[in-house]
Amino acid sequence: MSGNTFGNLFAVTNFGESHGPAIGCVIDGCPPGMDLCEADIQAELDRRRPGTSKFVTQRNEPDAVEILSGVYEGKTTGTPIALLIRNTDQRSKDYGNILQSFRPGHADYTYWHKFGIRDPRGGGRSSARLTAPTVAAGAVARKWLKERYGTTFHGCMTQIGDVAIPFESWDHVPNNPFFAPVADVSALEDYMNALRKSGDSCGARLRVTARNMPVGLGQPLYDKLDADIAYAMMGLNAVKGVEIGAGFDSVTHKGSTHGDALTPNGFANNNAGGVLGGISTGQDLEVAMAIKPTSSILIPRDTIDLQGQPTEVITKGRHDPCVGIRATPIAEALLALVVMEHALRQRAQCGDVTVGTPDIAALGR
Amino acid sequence: MSGNTFGNLFAVTNFGESHGPAIGCVIDGCPPGMDLCEADIQAELDRRRPGTSKFVTQRNEPDAVEILSGVYEGKTTGTPIALLIRNTDQRSKDYGNILQSFRPGHADYTYWHKFGIRDPRGGGRSSARLTAPTVAAGAVARKWLKERYGTTFHGCMTQIGDVAIPFESWDHVPNNPFFAPVADVSALEDYMNALRKSGDSCGARLRVTARNMPVGLGQPLYDKLDADIAYAMMGLNAVKGVEIGAGFDSVTHKGSTHGDALTPNGFANNNAGGVLGGISTGQDLEVAMAIKPTSSILIPRDTIDLQGQPTEVITKGRHDPCVGIRATPIAEALLALVVMEHALRQRAQCGDVTVGTPDIAALGR
Amino acid sequence: MSGNTFGNLFAVTNFGESHGPAIGCVIDGCPPGMDLCEADIQAELDRRRPGTSKFVTQRNEPDAVEILSGVYEGKTTGTPIALLIRNTDQRSKDYGNILQSFRPGHADYTYWHKFGIRDPRGGGRSSARLTAPTVAAGAVARKWLKERYGTTFHGCMTQIGDVAIPFESWDHVPNNPFFAPVADVSALEDYMNALRKSGDSCGARLRVTARNMPVGLGQPLYDKLDADIAYAMMGLNAVKGVEIGAGFDSVTHKGSTHGDALTPNGFANNNAGGVLGGISTGQDLEVAMAIKPTSSILIPRDTIDLQGQPTEVITKGRHDPCVGIRATPIAEALLALVVMEHALRQRAQCGDVTVGTPDIAALGR
Amino acid sequence: MSGNTFGNLFAVTNFGESHGPAIGCVIDGCPPGMDLCEADIQAELDRRRPGTSKFVTQRNEPDAVEILSGVYEGKTTGTPIALLIRNTDQRSKDYGNILQSFRPGHADYTYWHKFGIRDPRGGGRSSARLTAPTVAAGAVARKWLKERYGTTFHGCMTQIGDVAIPFESWDHVPNNPFFAPVADVSALEDYMNALRKSGDSCGARLRVTARNMPVGLGQPLYDKLDADIAYAMMGLNAVKGVEIGAGFDSVTHKGSTHGDALTPNGFANNNAGGVLGGISTGQDLEVAMAIKPTSSILIPRDTIDLQGQPTEVITKGRHDPCVGIRATPIAEALLALVVMEHALRQRAQCGDVTVGTPDIAALGR
Repeated sequence: MSGNTFGNLFAVTNFGESHGPAIGCVIDGCPPGMDLCEADIQAELDRRRPGTSKFVTQRNEPDAVEILSGVYEGKTTGTPIALLIRNTDQRSKDYGNILQSFRPGHADYTYWHKFGIRDPRGGGRSSARLTAPTVAAGAVARKWLKERYGTTFHGCMTQIGDVAIPFESWDHVPNNPFFAPVADVSALEDYMNALRKSGDSCGARLRVTARNMPVGLGQPLYDKLDADIAYAMMGLNAVKGVEIGAGFDSVTHKGSTHGDALTPNGFANNNAGGVLGGISTGQDLEVAMAIKPTSSILIPRDTIDLQGQPTEVITKGRHDPCVGIRATPIAEALLALVVMEHALRQRAQCGDVTVGTPDIAALGR
Repeated sequence: MSGNTFGNLFAVTNFGESHGPAIGCVIDGCPPGMDLCEADIQAELDRRRPGTSKFVTQRNEPDAVEILSGVYEGKTTGTPIALLIRNTDQRSKDYGNILQSFRPGHADYTYWHKFGIRDPRGGGRSSARLTAPTVAAGAVARKWLKERYGTTFHGCMTQIGDVAIPFESWDHVPNNPFFAPVADVSALEDYMNALRKSGDSCGARLRVTARNMPVGLGQPLYDKLDADIAYAMMGLNAVKGVEIGAGFDSVTHKGSTHGDALTPNGFANNNAGGVLGGISTGQDLEVAMAIKPTSSILIPRDTIDLQGQPTEVITKGRHDPCVGIRATPIAEALLALVVMEHALRQRAQCGDVTVGTPDIAALGR
Repeated sequence: MSGNTFGNLFAVTNFGESHGPAIGCVIDGCPPGMDLCEADIQAELDRRRPGTSKFVTQRNEPDAVEILSGVYEGKTTGTPIALLIRNTDQRSKDYGNILQSFRPGHADYTYWHKFGIRDPRGGGRSSARLTAPTVAAGAVARKWLKERYGTTFHGCMTQIGDVAIPFESWDHVPNNPFFAPVADVSALEDYMNALRKSGDSCGARLRVTARNMPVGLGQPLYDKLDADIAYAMMGLNAVKGVEIGAGFDSVTHKGSTHGDALTPNGFANNNAGGVLGGISTGQDLEVAMAIKPTSSILIPRDTIDLQGQPTEVITKGRHDPCVGIRATPIAEALLALVVMEHALRQRAQCGDVTVGTPDIAALGR
Repeated sequence: MSGNTFGNLFAVTNFGESHGPAIGCVIDGCPPGMDLCEADIQAELDRRRPGTSKFVTQRNEPDAVEILSGVYEGKTTGTPIALLIRNTDQRSKDYGNILQSFRPGHADYTYWHKFGIRDPRGGGRSSARLTAPTVAAGAVARKWLKERYGTTFHGCMTQIGDVAIPFESWDHVPNNPFFAPVADVSALEDYMNALRKSGDSCGARLRVTARNMPVGLGQPLYDKLDADIAYAMMGLNAVKGVEIGAGFDSVTHKGSTHGDALTPNGFANNNAGGVLGGISTGQDLEVAMAIKPTSSILIPRDTIDLQGQPTEVITKGRHDPCVGIRATPIAEALLALVVMEHALRQRAQCGDVTVGTPDIAALGR
C-alpha cells in the first residue's frame, strides 16, 4: 500500500537507502522445493553492478547478497526469502552541495514535499541503487520460471541518445558494456566518451522480451498482463514511456493488417507483443521503453533552494551518464516478476498453466 | 487479485459482460459526506455512450446508472457505492459467425485458453463496454477531487490513423464527435468516412492531463504515480503504448535540457509530465497513449477455428471503427482514479495533501 | 482496504444497506467451468431468511438472488460473479424513534462518529441483513469445495441464553427453527416464548465445523488458517468470542494430554480443532462462537441523544430476539469462504491441494 | 498473500527462521518525521526476551535490533523501516531427535504436508521466536500512537494453568516474571516449579487492553476492528480462543443489561470491550485470550514417523513450560499494530481521527 512491495502472490518487499547500512528485499510466496543459493542471485546482480566499465558510475561495490531466510539445506522452504546487501562504498560527502537545493529532473523536490524530510545521501530512497534488490528477486523468479516452464528473459539496448542500434544478435549482448545486440560498439563508445567529456547525460531506448511464454497469463479487467508490465517498467527509475508489441506504431496501423493472423502453426507475426485482451498468447512478450537522461550532471542548472530562492546546482559525485545502460538487467528482472506473479495467479484460479501453443481441441472442456 | 478491482483505498470492483443482464461496479472507500446523485455520474457516462455519432458503434443504449447503495439523503455515507447499468440492446445473433473461430487481434483466443470457456456474446468480458463502470466510478472520484483540491481532468484526441490533430484549444473538445481540440474537424470526418466505407478500422493517439494537481502523490518504490498511470492506461482496451511528459522523445534528450528548471514562480517547463521520482510535482500531469485499430472489422482475415484448422473470419455486428474516439472520457476517468487512490494514500501516511506550489520554507518541519 | 471485501483470491465485495434499493456482492476469482445457477445459491439464502418462524424477525422478504454476471450457459466463466438481492419489505417508519438517539450496544453510535453521517433505516449498513450476500457467496464456495474436495460445512446451536443444548445428531438441525442438534426443542421454544413476552433478547453459542478438510491450508506467519477463521467469525455481527478446538479449556490443559497424538490411522483426538501452527491438519475444523443479545429491544434503555443529552430509547420495528438463531448458516458460509481462499492460495504457491490423511512416505520429495 | 505481512497501510513483513542467520521485518507505511532509534525498539524486545527467568526458555540471546533503513538523522523518513535481529544462540543439535517424527500438537506435521519440506531447527518458521519482529514493529506503532493520540497498550496474565490470578493493579505487572497484576506471585512460582519438575507444560489466559482509544476505528463490513483483533490474537502461536469485552459471558446475557448505557459522561460499563458494530467507541479495548500448553515437552508422546509408523517422541532442548508468560508483550504489540492500521485507514477515508468522547454536537456535519 505504501508502494514498496511488488506483486501479491510472489510479493517482493524492497527496503533501504543508497547510503544507509544496507539494502535488500523479502520475497514472500516463492514455491517450496526449488534449489537456491546465493550464487544463483549473485550472477544477476553482477550484470547490474556499478563500476564495471568507464561508462557507468564508478561507485565500486561488490553488492554481495546474503540469504537470511527461506532456504534450508539449499532448497526453498515456501517461507519468506530475505535478501541482504550491505552498502560498503558510501561517500556521502560528495553530495554535500545538493543538500540545500533541488536538482532539476530529480526526486529531491518531490520527496521533500511528500514527506517533509529526505535522506539526501546518494539520492536516499530514490537512488537507482534500489533496483539491486529488484534484480535479486527477479533472479529467483527467473530460476523458477525457467525450470518450470522454460521461460527466459532477454533485454538489450536499442538506442543511446541519438545513436540507434540495429539488432544483429542476442549473442552480442553480454560481450559489450552497453548490452547492445551488435558486434561493433565503437560508435557507442565514441558517443559516450564525448558525452562524458561534456559533463552531460543522455537518454536511451531498451527492448526486453520473454520467450517460451505460458499461455493465459493476465487477469481481466484491470490487472491485464500488459497493464502490469507497463506498471513495472514505468516504475523503473527514469522511464518515461512504455510500448507493448507495435506500440506507438499502432496509431497508423489498419485493423486489416495490425491483428496477428492465426495459422495452424501459430501466429503469423507479433504486433500484439504477446498479449491480447490483457492475457498472454504464448507469443514472445515484446516490450520497449524510453529512459530519460540522468538528472545528476556536472553542468550547472537553474533551480531554487529550500527557502524558494533562485540558485544554481551542480552534481559532483559518481553518476551514470546514461542510466539506460544498466537498466537492461533490471527490466528483464521486472518482466520476470510480472510473469511470475501472473503464473501463480493462473495456478490459483485455473489450477494449471500451459506453455506454448496448446492443442486447442484438447481445451474443449 | 483476480484483476477486476482498481485501487485499494478507493477500490472499484467492476463486473459484467457485454450481453449479460447488467454491468456495474462497487466503489469501496469513498469519503463520506459528499453530495452525490445519479445525474453526477450520468453526465460522464453520456460522454462515453455508444450511438452518439456515425463514427462510433451504433449499439444504442441509454446506459442509465442506478445507485444501489452508499448514498443516504443525497450524501455519500462512507459505505460501498454500488452502481448498476442494465444491458438493454444486446443483439447476440450478430456474433454467431465468430463462435467457432478466433478474430486476429482479439481476446477471443486468450480468454479461451485461459479459462477453457468464454462468453462470446459481444466480446463478453473483454468488450469495451466494460469501460462504462470505470467511467462511472471515475465520475465519483472526479467530483471529490474537484471539490476538495480543485483538480480537474481533460483529454483529447491528437491523432486518428494518419491524421495528426494540432492542439488549438480545450474549448473545441466537447463540440465535435472526435474529442478533437480543433475547430474544424472536416479532415477527420473525411478520413473516417473513407475508413468506414472500406470496412477497416484505424488506430489513434490520445492525450490526457490533470490540472491543479496535489503535490506529493505517488509512492516509492514500486507504486510510483507514473507507474500506476501506466498501469491504468495500458489496461484500457487496445492501448499499446503510454508516455508521461516527454515520453519517447526523452531518448534523444540531454540531461542539461531535459530536467525542468525550478524558479521561484514554479517549473520552467514540463518534460517531467508532472512526476519526479514517481511523485507528483504539482505540475500538470501529462499522459499520452497509442490505441491500436479495432480487431472487429468487415474485412475477412485468416485465422483458425476451435479445432485448430485454418479458416476465415469476418465480424459483422456493430463496432467502433476507431475505438480511440470513445476512449477519451475513459482515459480521463482512469487518471482520476489513480490520483484519487494516491490522494487517499497520502492522507493515510502523511496526514494531509497540499495543492499547487507549497511554501517550501513552511515545510521545514 | 475499506473493509467490505472478504478474501483476496476468492474475493467477495459486499454492498448495500438494510433499507436501500438492494444488497448484493461481487465474487472475483471463482474458478471457471463450474455449473452454477441461482437455485444453488437460493437454497442457502432460504436457510438464513427472515420470517421463517416466530422466533426470528417478522420482516418478510423472499431474498431472491439474481446472477448478473460471470455465468454463461450455466457455467462459471472465471470472471466476476455479481449477485443482486432487491430489498422489498422496508418499513423505514418503524425506525423513526431512534433517529435522534443511540441504542446501547448498537453500531448507531460508532457509525455516527466514524463517518459523521449514518443511514438509520433498519440499521443501514450495520444491519444483520448484510449477511445475506455473505451467505450467497458462501454457497458458491461451498459448491466448488464440495465438488473438488468433498469438503462440507455444518453448524448448529449449542446454547441459547441459559439453555445449553446437548449434541444428539446433525440430522436434527434442519428439522427445527433453532438449528439445534436435538430432537425435542420444546425447552427452547418455552425459553424463547418467555423471552419474546418480556421484550428482551438473549445471547447464544454456536458450533461450526468442516469435514473432509484438505491438508496444508493456512499461511505462516500471520494469515494462519485459525487467524482467518477468527477474523471471519468475530466479524459476524454480535459475535464476542471465538474458539478453535479446545478453545478456552486449553488454559487448564497440560501439554502431555492436550496435543493430539498421531497414529497410523490418524489423530487420536481433536483438541487442535483441525489446525496446527496455523495450517490445517486434515482433521475436522472445529469452531465455536459466542453471540451477544440483540441491542434492538422493546425495553427502554438509558442513552444520550445527538446533542449529548440524556434520554431513553426503545426499538420497535421487527427484530430477532436472538440473532444467534439465524447466524448458523452465516457462520457455515464464512468458514467456507476462509477455506476457499486458503485452498486457492495453496494452489498458487504449492501447486496442489491434498485431502484427508496423505501418504506421508509419498511426500518425501 | 502468502501470510507473512501484517496490515496494509502499516504493513509489517516478517522473515526468518529460529535457527537461520537472522530474523526481522520490514515496516512499510510508517508516517514520516517521528523520532526513532534502536533503543525505542529494544525496550520492548527486552520484555519478550528469552532467558530472563527460570520460568521461560533458557535460550540466551540479546535479540539486539539493528535499523537498516527508513530512519535519517534519528527521524523516520516515510520509507520502509527494515529491522534486523541476528540469531546468535542456535543449538541445533538439541533438535536431532525430532527430525524423523512429528510432535503431537506441533506444526511439524502441517509444515511438512503443506510445503513438502521443513526447516526442523528450533521449529524453523513456526518457532515462537518469530514473534520478536512483531514486537519490534509493534514498538514503532506504539510510539506513534502514544505521541499522536496518547493511546497506550497494557497486558497481563490472568490465569496460569489451574491458578486464576486476581487483578490487583497494573503496577505489579513489570515487577514479576509472569506479567501478573498481583504483588505476591509465590503461588505462581510454586505452580511453575512443580510443572517444570514434572517435565510438562501448561496453558494460560491473558488480558490485553488499549487506553485513550481513538473513536471511529474499524471498517464495515468485514474488516471490523474486533475482527482484526481476533485475527491478530488467534494468529499468535498457541492461542486457541479470543474474547472481546464480555466474550463468552455474553451467551447468558440479556439485551436489557448487556448493552452499555450511554450517559453524558460516557459509557456506564464496557461489555462491548470498546467496539460496537466493528468500530471503536472510545472505551478501552478489552481483549482476552486462551493459550494452549507448549507441545515441546520432556514427557514421551505417541506419534508417527515420516514413514507413518508408530513411534514415541520426546523434546529435549530449551522450551518455555508456559508460552503464555512471554506472550503478554507480544499481544500488546499485536493490538497496537491493529489500532495503527485502522488509524491510518481512518485518516485515509475520513481525513482525521478523534480521541476520547467527542463533542457529539460538533459532529453534526
